[in-house]
Amino acid sequence: MSTALDRLRSLAREKAVVATSAATIGWDQETYLPDDGHEWRADQIAWLSERAHELGTSSAWGDALAAAEADGTAPALTAAMRRDYDRATKLPGELVAREAQASSLGKQAWADARKRSDFATFAPHLETLLAIAREKADRWGYEAEAYDALLDTYERGATAAGIASLFDALKPQLREVAAAAVARSDSRNATLPGGIYPIEAQQKFNAVVAESLGFDFKAGRIDTTAHPFCTTLGPRDIRLTTRYDESDFTSSLFGVMHEAGHGLYEQGLPAKEVGLPSGEAASLGIHESQSRLWENHVGRSRPFWEKWLPVAAQHFPQLAGTSLDDFLAAIHRAAFSYIRVEADEATYDLHILLRFGLERRLVSGELSVKDVPAAWNESFRDLFGMTPPDDAHGCLQDIHWSMGGLGYFPTYTLGNLNAAQLFAAANADATISSAIAKAEYAPLLTWLRDKVHAKGAVLTPAEIISQATGKAPSPEAHLEHLRLRYLA
Amino acid sequence: MSTALDRLRSLAREKAVVATSAATIGWDQETYLPDDGHEWRADQIAWLSERAHELGTSSAWGDALAAAEADGTAPALTAAMRRDYDRATKLPGELVAREAQASSLGKQAWADARKRSDFATFAPHLETLLAIAREKADRWGYEAEAYDALLDTYERGATAAGIASLFDALKPQLREVAAAAVARSDSRNATLPGGIYPIEAQQKFNAVVAESLGFDFKAGRIDTTAHPFCTTLGPRDIRLTTRYDESDFTSSLFGVMHEAGHGLYEQGLPAKEVGLPSGEAASLGIHESQSRLWENHVGRSRPFWEKWLPVAAQHFPQLAGTSLDDFLAAIHRAAFSYIRVEADEATYDLHILLRFGLERRLVSGELSVKDVPAAWNESFRDLFGMTPPDDAHGCLQDIHWSMGGLGYFPTYTLGNLNAAQLFAAANADATISSAIAKAEYAPLLTWLRDKVHAKGAVLTPAEIISQATGKAPSPEAHLEHLRLRYLA
Repeated sequence: MSTALDRLRSLAREKAVVATSAATIGWDQETYLPDDGHEWRADQIAWLSERAHELGTSSAWGDALAAAEADGTAPALTAAMRRDYDRATKLPGELVAREAQASSLGKQAWADARKRSDFATFAPHLETLLAIAREKADRWGYEAEAYDALLDTYERGATAAGIASLFDALKPQLREVAAAAVARSDSRNATLPGGIYPIEAQQKFNAVVAESLGFDFKAGRIDTTAHPFCTTLGPRDIRLTTRYDESDFTSSLFGVMHEAGHGLYEQGLPAKEVGLPSGEAASLGIHESQSRLWENHVGRSRPFWEKWLPVAAQHFPQLAGTSLDDFLAAIHRAAFSYIRVEADEATYDLHILLRFGLERRLVSGELSVKDVPAAWNESFRDLFGMTPPDDAHGCLQDIHWSMGGLGYFPTYTLGNLNAAQLFAAANADATISSAIAKAEYAPLLTWLRDKVHAKGAVLTPAEIISQATGKAPSPEAHLEHLRLRYLA
Repeated sequence: MSTALDRLRSLAREKAVVATSAATIGWDQETYLPDDGHEWRADQIAWLSERAHELGTSSAWGDALAAAEADGTAPALTAAMRRDYDRATKLPGELVAREAQASSLGKQAWADARKRSDFATFAPHLETLLAIAREKADRWGYEAEAYDALLDTYERGATAAGIASLFDALKPQLREVAAAAVARSDSRNATLPGGIYPIEAQQKFNAVVAESLGFDFKAGRIDTTAHPFCTTLGPRDIRLTTRYDESDFTSSLFGVMHEAGHGLYEQGLPAKEVGLPSGEAASLGIHESQSRLWENHVGRSRPFWEKWLPVAAQHFPQLAGTSLDDFLAAIHRAAFSYIRVEADEATYDLHILLRFGLERRLVSGELSVKDVPAAWNESFRDLFGMTPPDDAHGCLQDIHWSMGGLGYFPTYTLGNLNAAQLFAAANADATISSAIAKAEYAPLLTWLRDKVHAKGAVLTPAEIISQATGKAPSPEAHLEHLRLRYLA
């Protein structure tokens, strides 16, 4: 192996050591940090984040990269690293610091504004964050529109025009599926049996299920947080979190299956390539495909519950008399709702279409900040046929914009599309599909490890999907899945 | 305030941010880290420890210190910092790295040797660690003997000769107290009521007790580990750990009271001085005085249990019929045992006298490594009148030497002496003693905050004790306390 590449590997490993130290401290902040510890903790995370950024933009890194490019041993890897390095070094430290501050203030202002449903106090922060986002896009450069440069942060190779044409085509079909699913669901009115589902029993059941999917508890844990997430503290230390509702065990279970999907991806990345694009997740849209696949295609499927409903009934005695059909009807319940994070599979993507439309116009300047609430509500009426009662249930509900995360939202729907396309392709293999029919997922995981996890981030997300499934990314599998589950 | 001092404060704060990041990651390693995460975790801790060392030995630090010395605004503070800086910069990076490696290998070899009670496989590691300790002492410099320089790391201003004359004077009196306490204890044969003391009930009771002592749970937590400890993750984030024995609730309780003593000290250090000697604990002997004071002088006292035994009986119904006298007899049980960490208050210091004698002779070269087991057993017979059955119950029982911690052991007994002297001095105040008689400890804590915690590490440990108690450090109060509790 080339000496330059060795040097690059060693620098990348060091950066990963620092970045995962920040992640460890961040995980503790969300799980166990005492109330008064937050101020100091913020300083620790800021210091570590600055050091990671410094390492990744250092001249030592640039020199090693140039030397590795020159000797040409690993052109695809160095091309991916060149792209990341150039993007990182195009932002001056002053801008990075300004963004961190604006994002920190923005989050505070947003949390406060949401509580009081008062968009006006958040608006100036959104103005500032938008200006910074445009400035970043200008420095990074783009061909068609500034939004492309932002989107590229989360989904390499995607463009606003491409997403727009995809979403325009999806919109009428998604509306049709959603409306029919909601109507059917309303007529059935299926619910889970009542009574308490004790947290301790949920924890035991969730762990058994996560382990059965292949999540390795020697290299991971599940803890409790207000907002579920998955974070990587080291190549063999992947932490999931969930929250518990004692009246509905499926809330924490599907949360765990979703986060375990992220965690299986992280556990499946090539550990030796840690810190390099070859050892990193490809994109948010690919990451989300893994979580949605395990949560929805596996976790909400009939074969899964054929096996697991009797086991669940051992943990939760009130399920003993519930038929599989009734149980499935309850977990396939669909409803139009104001809040994205509470939305079901059948209506979820409509929430994303709305956000993408607005944020693209915000970045281009076509929509001004002050007009966001009205534009949100108008778009919501168009898609859902109802008007949010206030901005807390409308344009103030999500944290993303308050952190400067413009260009992030489309990756949720890309994740849904990718999940369906990957799951359909895997099922074309008879060994995999017959195992899945028995709720056995080792062959599926092996396929995902091989086709997705092992690839890292050297290929683009679209290339990964195309190579894995033999087809360019397309919404067909997702629509077919929704029709089959919600309308058949 | 002087600009140089500001600069020094800012550098010290940054070093504390880095050092507490390492502590946070270390805490997670002991509490929640999955099995496979250890290798990566070691790299994270090593990286952070190196950065903290770099900061504390940087020329920027040295320049700011020299400037602050020159402007003379805070001579006591800069003198303490000069001492630390000179000690740190006297060790070349190569030696620090070599010690870290030898210590890491030493710990592994020790754990393995202890399991098999096989001193021979540990001996070469102890040779290496001893050579490194001597090399450090030579670089630091000393007047009388190399051990002084090592001891000074843990207990500033203490000398081997001083400790030896103190321990020589203590020895006959400690042996007399221990023998009488054990004889009385054997004749009474008092034990706690049997049955299960459920862990959850222990956790609740421990938390109530810790809070009643003044431990602030907004700035701290209690978790579970194999070996109890207290660690500081930030000025307002102090973590205690304990372990549980379901047949004896006092094991975790006294563990929590001990660690809470350390924690109260850390919570009482001046937060604004974080990273500076003025915001740091004075020494191990002072730190241990706080843990022993709360564990032994408070936690094993009659007034404490007059109040808390009825509360304990609410958590553990089997205590309902136990009289206060019987309960006190059970928790004042004394016995000669082979293992230091299981020793009671009446026999504990004998274990320390033995270790100090051996390690002083090891460092001077008077005792060679191969002769340690025989020397240990001979000394044990002299002090305890019995012979350890094997080296696992003898010279291999403690982790300290395997980490290069030579000069550490005497601080445990210094802690006991300091605890007794401080507690007696506080009790001379009528307000404090009448509160203590009612098991109310707020006045005691206020006194400790003022006389010890607020002082940081600018004064020497001996100066802190002298100023707090009006007397030079002396063993009298400790011996009187033991006689009163175990012989009266």
